[in-house]
Amino acid sequence: MCRGFHDECGIVGVYNHPEASNIVYLGLYALQHRGQESAGIVSSDGKRLYSHKDMGLVADIFTGEILKRLPGRSAIGHVRYSTSGESHIRNAQPFVVDYARGSIAIAHNGNLVNARILRDELEAYGSIFQSDMDTEVIMHLIASSRDATLTGRLIHALTRVRGAYSLVIITDSCLIATRDPHGFRPLVLGRLRDGWVVASETCAFDLIEAEYVRQIDAGELLIIDERGLTSHKPFQKATYSPCIFEFIYFARPDSNVFGANVHTVRKNLGRELAREHPVRADVVIPVPDSGVGAAIGYAEEAGIPFDMGLVRNHYIGRTFIEPQDSIRDFGVKIKLNPVRDVIDGKRVVVVDDSIVRGTTSRKIIKMIRNAGAKEVHLRISSPPTIAPCFYGIDTPTRDELIASKKSVEEINRFLTTDTLAYLSLEGLYRAVRQAGTSFCDACFTGRYPVEIPQERGQPQLILFK
Amino acid sequence: MCRGFHDECGIVGVYNHPEASNIVYLGLYALQHRGQESAGIVSSDGKRLYSHKDMGLVADIFTGEILKRLPGRSAIGHVRYSTSGESHIRNAQPFVVDYARGSIAIAHNGNLVNARILRDELEAYGSIFQSDMDTEVIMHLIASSRDATLTGRLIHALTRVRGAYSLVIITDSCLIATRDPHGFRPLVLGRLRDGWVVASETCAFDLIEAEYVRQIDAGELLIIDERGLTSHKPFQKATYSPCIFEFIYFARPDSNVFGANVHTVRKNLGRELAREHPVRADVVIPVPDSGVGAAIGYAEEAGIPFDMGLVRNHYIGRTFIEPQDSIRDFGVKIKLNPVRDVIDGKRVVVVDDSIVRGTTSRKIIKMIRNAGAKEVHLRISSPPTIAPCFYGIDTPTRDELIASKKSVEEINRFLTTDTLAYLSLEGLYRAVRQAGTSFCDACFTGRYPVEIPQERGQPQLILFK
Amino acid sequence: MCRGFHDECGIVGVYNHPEASNIVYLGLYALQHRGQESAGIVSSDGKRLYSHKDMGLVADIFTGEILKRLPGRSAIGHVRYSTSGESHIRNAQPFVVDYARGSIAIAHNGNLVNARILRDELEAYGSIFQSDMDTEVIMHLIASSRDATLTGRLIHALTRVRGAYSLVIITDSCLIATRDPHGFRPLVLGRLRDGWVVASETCAFDLIEAEYVRQIDAGELLIIDERGLTSHKPFQKATYSPCIFEFIYFARPDSNVFGANVHTVRKNLGRELAREHPVRADVVIPVPDSGVGAAIGYAEEAGIPFDMGLVRNHYIGRTFIEPQDSIRDFGVKIKLNPVRDVIDGKRVVVVDDSIVRGTTSRKIIKMIRNAGAKEVHLRISSPPTIAPCFYGIDTPTRDELIASKKSVEEINRFLTTDTLAYLSLEGLYRAVRQAGTSFCDACFTGRYPVEIPQERGQPQLILFK
Amino acid sequence: MCRGFHDECGIVGVYNHPEASNIVYLGLYALQHRGQESAGIVSSDGKRLYSHKDMGLVADIFTGEILKRLPGRSAIGHVRYSTSGESHIRNAQPFVVDYARGSIAIAHNGNLVNARILRDELEAYGSIFQSDMDTEVIMHLIASSRDATLTGRLIHALTRVRGAYSLVIITDSCLIATRDPHGFRPLVLGRLRDGWVVASETCAFDLIEAEYVRQIDAGELLIIDERGLTSHKPFQKATYSPCIFEFIYFARPDSNVFGANVHTVRKNLGRELAREHPVRADVVIPVPDSGVGAAIGYAEEAGIPFDMGLVRNHYIGRTFIEPQDSIRDFGVKIKLNPVRDVIDGKRVVVVDDSIVRGTTSRKIIKMIRNAGAKEVHLRISSPPTIAPCFYGIDTPTRDELIASKKSVEEINRFLTTDTLAYLSLEGLYRAVRQAGTSFCDACFTGRYPVEIPQERGQPQLILFK
Repeated sequence: MCRGFHDECGIVGVYNHPEASNIVYLGLYALQHRGQESAGIVSSDGKRLYSHKDMGLVADIFTGEILKRLPGRSAIGHVRYSTSGESHIRNAQPFVVDYARGSIAIAHNGNLVNARILRDELEAYGSIFQSDMDTEVIMHLIASSRDATLTGRLIHALTRVRGAYSLVIITDSCLIATRDPHGFRPLVLGRLRDGWVVASETCAFDLIEAEYVRQIDAGELLIIDERGLTSHKPFQKATYSPCIFEFIYFARPDSNVFGANVHTVRKNLGRELAREHPVRADVVIPVPDSGVGAAIGYAEEAGIPFDMGLVRNHYIGRTFIEPQDSIRDFGVKIKLNPVRDVIDGKRVVVVDDSIVRGTTSRKIIKMIRNAGAKEVHLRISSPPTIAPCFYGIDTPTRDELIASKKSVEEINRFLTTDTLAYLSLEGLYRAVRQAGTSFCDACFTGRYPVEIPQERGQPQLILFK
Repeated sequence: MCRGFHDECGIVGVYNHPEASNIVYLGLYALQHRGQESAGIVSSDGKRLYSHKDMGLVADIFTGEILKRLPGRSAIGHVRYSTSGESHIRNAQPFVVDYARGSIAIAHNGNLVNARILRDELEAYGSIFQSDMDTEVIMHLIASSRDATLTGRLIHALTRVRGAYSLVIITDSCLIATRDPHGFRPLVLGRLRDGWVVASETCAFDLIEAEYVRQIDAGELLIIDERGLTSHKPFQKATYSPCIFEFIYFARPDSNVFGANVHTVRKNLGRELAREHPVRADVVIPVPDSGVGAAIGYAEEAGIPFDMGLVRNHYIGRTFIEPQDSIRDFGVKIKLNPVRDVIDGKRVVVVDDSIVRGTTSRKIIKMIRNAGAKEVHLRISSPPTIAPCFYGIDTPTRDELIASKKSVEEINRFLTTDTLAYLSLEGLYRAVRQAGTSFCDACFTGRYPVEIPQERGQPQLILFK
Repeated sequence: MCRGFHDECGIVGVYNHPEASNIVYLGLYALQHRGQESAGIVSSDGKRLYSHKDMGLVADIFTGEILKRLPGRSAIGHVRYSTSGESHIRNAQPFVVDYARGSIAIAHNGNLVNARILRDELEAYGSIFQSDMDTEVIMHLIASSRDATLTGRLIHALTRVRGAYSLVIITDSCLIATRDPHGFRPLVLGRLRDGWVVASETCAFDLIEAEYVRQIDAGELLIIDERGLTSHKPFQKATYSPCIFEFIYFARPDSNVFGANVHTVRKNLGRELAREHPVRADVVIPVPDSGVGAAIGYAEEAGIPFDMGLVRNHYIGRTFIEPQDSIRDFGVKIKLNPVRDVIDGKRVVVVDDSIVRGTTSRKIIKMIRNAGAKEVHLRISSPPTIAPCFYGIDTPTRDELIASKKSVEEINRFLTTDTLAYLSLEGLYRAVRQAGTSFCDACFTGRYPVEIPQERGQPQLILFK
Repeated sequence: MCRGFHDECGIVGVYNHPEASNIVYLGLYALQHRGQESAGIVSSDGKRLYSHKDMGLVADIFTGEILKRLPGRSAIGHVRYSTSGESHIRNAQPFVVDYARGSIAIAHNGNLVNARILRDELEAYGSIFQSDMDTEVIMHLIASSRDATLTGRLIHALTRVRGAYSLVIITDSCLIATRDPHGFRPLVLGRLRDGWVVASETCAFDLIEAEYVRQIDAGELLIIDERGLTSHKPFQKATYSPCIFEFIYFARPDSNVFGANVHTVRKNLGRELAREHPVRADVVIPVPDSGVGAAIGYAEEAGIPFDMGLVRNHYIGRTFIEPQDSIRDFGVKIKLNPVRDVIDGKRVVVVDDSIVRGTTSRKIIKMIRNAGAKEVHLRISSPPTIAPCFYGIDTPTRDELIASKKSVEEINRFLTTDTLAYLSLEGLYRAVRQAGTSFCDACFTGRYPVEIPQERGQPQLILFK
């Protein structure tokens, strides 16, 4: 994870490529959907590390001139999103430091659940912290290890942390990729000419024309240096628990995640949903973009025409200035607009991936009704979200999750839908079609593979720059 | 048009709303697809005009603080795109000046064909020009008119120009909307509480919750002031020739343009295409986003499953820094990525709206083949583009249009498609389904409703700021 | 002048130098004291004009990259200061346009007194105005002239304007320098290798290592082109009236202006002041920086030690944020601080160049008293300022000039000085030591060489960008 | 110090003022001459610390909006200059961290000589470093102390460091000011209404209208909290060694430093110089601004007229773009220009504060000769600079100091002066006129009060943001 509980991130690493930082930059661009708040790259020329981080989108931060100042044949990168108010350049990654054995930089996707406890302990022993990032805890554990090798120190450090982490690490001599024993967050390995690349999702490989090799295993510590690849599995075994929500919402449809194509899984989710919750209707429309795959699957299975009844405006920018004479449902309208011809006078099945607080869904339903829908049937391609994520997906607290407090029937009334139905947990697992693989489904079941943390205290520093 | 031949624009005007500039800002955001290079708003508080223009996206240019500096109950706005190298803040609109009878600002969508001739004439009589915009010609004609009323001066000015113009004009006392006698570019009128709004497309009305009233007629000069609406039709009648390409590519699918819904027309285009050029295949995929509607129509008519085989990355930013170790088809890859699971081993129908130079299409086809397609059949939802537009759509010169020089069979070979087929002109008209309405189809037929201009000279000023 | 009445400017032109825009940039840097609000350069490569203007300091606006985009062997530049609220990039110079005979750019120092009348007339004949600059009037007059040659058109235009102008003009083939028949504002000619340079002050020549040749004469129109220099004197003779205030305050001490060194004149002013208004005192201190020369002269003549009793903070920046718990005399303190050791227990003669509203002087006197001065004697190295300037120096209206309403004795009481004395008009002329030369001394006498203008109307456009 | 050896800094702290951060901002503005590269403020509202730092000038970095985000009744600030290439926002101060006992921020002026050794030791025990600043070493020592109180931890930490430090420290409950036992760098205490203020120089007090109370003693640790002032002297006594170079060059003339007024000392330096090294001449001119005081003293003592023969251009900006057709002595010309009238045909005494490499002085001498000087006699108001400073003044390495390798006669020949003379060490001490006070004069004698450090290693991180 990154910081607070509610951060989402994407990471990339490149080893042995003449234009390593440029390749990482493109990889981050492909992973931009995993975090739009800040981005950073750290490169290594074999002697030193070079770093540049800033707030904003990858394509706005990195110019040719800046990439030139990030020389070397290896580099790592990070994109990050945080809903916390303290979004700040100090919390941007990769996290880079000097310590006794040299310089090191880490890019981290996932959340630790014992970060606060470890931080208190480290501070008690004299460590000082300059950010709110969990990653800084890992850094301190590495630095305080007495082990003679970096590998040893890393094992020492990671043995102490609990929770979700996919990491890429760079030093002056090697690139390291590692994934926690539960394998919560994805991390894949690819070949790029004579070098290697790791990334959160395979869509990064497609852009840079790397060849997919395999996933980094849960609990694997992979060291890439001049001797090639060395794989370690030093941690205690744990139940493999990849995040099932990557399929439902988070990953890009063209990516392969945990061995399956995201778009294909989403179509399966839609098909299962159609089987479980059929309805007589004239048209199936998705809430774009994340609902498109499931809607196509639902429409196909149900034999109802698929159509694009909602158009998304992609010209995202800074916060919008709303007129005082307030527009109804402004927040939704700025992103989505109905196509009246598709909806008017029709019985409409709307397919979305999930319902969080319910407020946005309610506005979308209203928008569809105003466009003339005769009936609105909402179909959700996952089970009710009843519990927050502590492993790297941005979710509100349990109290804010509508399904943690209301029954499906109550939610149906709240949303003013004619009918509302969620995919069952069984349906979800059928759709993923990976017999024998367990997943982390804590957001739907409240069963956390790793014990949940205490609420963290407020950060004490307010840093503006 | 705006300047050069090859500009695309969107315009908005609001009369009598307490937050006029804020409403125009939202309208421009909804029209952002019509131009992403520069944007501007001019407001009127009944005494003065207030102006702000800059390069960039609407949501980046206008902050709350800037909107506060644009007071008054009326305002107009403009978004603009230009492929010409001389993109420049001096050419941003609305165009605002002082002249003998006060201050006036114009926002212009469309291209004049006799701008160069008029400009030479005006300069010969002592006028000076500070931009390359056709709009400045209109301004000079208004200023040099001896007519006693603004309406009279406007009629005088517009009687002299030839070509495409949809204009919104603001002064300290009124808002004026007008469309050239051929009606090339769209312009619609709406009601917003006690006030009025005009915009290029109805999608702007949806966001600001204005009620659609009607189109501004071709050749209509509509004056909105404290006495209400006054409509004039002072120009010589001409054949109504709305731009058919707005349906095919340019307008937003959720907009109504020239009285029809764009998405519905696109689905019809796809259906006609399927009837004219059927093919045995496993899946129909669009080139997103403009090809989606036609692909849905094609798939439905052909009874072949529709799917999203290409994913679009919407995180547009500045020019991308390409590695020297060049990635194949970089320009396409940065925008599109195939979903291998959808394509691999399949006979694929790819639906796109048009082919311009052919180079991008060729790269897309290659990308689809590399993703494992067994067969690739390209279907274009319009006839071959053989002639440039001189009325406000950005097209290259005739020589650069692949269909102006090659036969469909030759293009098929160039693109390396298994089969290639274009919709016929008859099919196009059937899809639009507006019996009796003529359209400007010059890009497909070379028949220009208004005589084409001579090639314009190079501009003599290079303005960087 | 530039616009409104109250603008100050500096201008430079270079003809036939391989790095013309770079040389102009350095010249503008040397003239930065003449205007810190905006700066601009227009270059010519013999075919086209290239322009860049922006708000801010010369050294901040022009980077190497921007200078590269201003190619060619000729260039002109402009720095500008305006106290008017409507400071704006649209009013930045050089002013550049297209007209019937090509492109032309003008940089203007001075103020026209009949700009409003000419503008009304031009607008009545159909001209449109895009700025508030007097320079735009000149441009329109040039464009509307029927004369066959540029020289002829320029003569035609300048014959119509009244007031102060030193101009440098650039086209694709020549550089033109001209000064109004009264010669209000300075303009000098220099040799730079095989080329020529003109500038407001000679300090610009020193930095770029140009050799001073002569002044541009009052009423001279100097054309520099491939045939060399051609001098015209087409205007009706007028009394030579160079601005005497350039010596007192405005020009840089290291410059030669109207044939004399500014610093030397200022020392003479101080000497005359000492002779006219001696006082028993322990130390003579200047109000830096403009009072330094006169204070040195006063001290020498009076035989009283000179010292720096006030230190100036040169780290100028944006508007300072004053604490609510307001600091006494904040505006002065942010710029000046007394050296207590120099002042404490002493009878102090303070030498300043002029008193405008009196409020700043009052604060400075208070500051000196608080630093322990036993007596404070203020000596002003010019006569009382009783009338505003309409020819290019930024002064407030007559009502705001303290000396227009109060006697010297009343001002002395207002300032709380022990004694206050101004240099006499005779002393001023003795100090300048140019027997036979008349000067414009309107600010001290109210005798305007060119009739004063009517109050101008408010501008109607509020342009933010 | 700040980082590397070659940094210069200014610091301010305010305790108990309703607009603490605004007052610190003004204090930093007054101290801007001590560092123009970066600036920062950290405020405390009694619960949290708030921080803002950036590259640039104080007046450019801090807007009203930013100051509003720095609430609370206490605040500290820092300005910094570094010649090292690795200037970077990460090395900007105040340095702010979380550790076991809360949050703390430090602003540091001075250089530690054992920072590298301590850093290696701390890293060996597991500390990680995120900057190159010596200050981070102090922070780690505080954090690793087991002492129960902050005072105890601070004493623990500062007992371990060697070298120069004047510090202001802020926590949620107190402000701390401390100065190393040698008292290298200045630090003064003032009263501001009901609160307290500390600053590097008294000129900061003048602007904010604080009342000077006393110096912070060498070796004093002053704690300011709700109980008032508590002074500790916990460190081993050391010879008082304030930096004599503050008088000669670094401090502002209107400041009192180490109990004496800087301008007065500089005049004394000039007088001593005139006594030791008289010369027949027509005029005495300073190299502005630092040479002004000594030149006034020299002129007075020698009975030769003082004049401003060189004018300084204060419109500092980014790096200047030099024409390829290089201007002679460009670097000097951009800052200084001679007044020919003052110099031409004269025997000139030029007074400067010191000679570092000699290259700039040589260019100035040449410039004066070109302006017509008959003789040029250079007088330096300090002894030859033969050794680098390791305590907080930016000096080049010993090899680059011209006086470390050449005799005065050799330097005279290199500079092409007619005569060259330096003030003697005895003269320097006479001028300071503080009998019984020792000073650090290492730059003139090579006698370092604290043993000099080993050359530090290269930093391993290159951080751009």
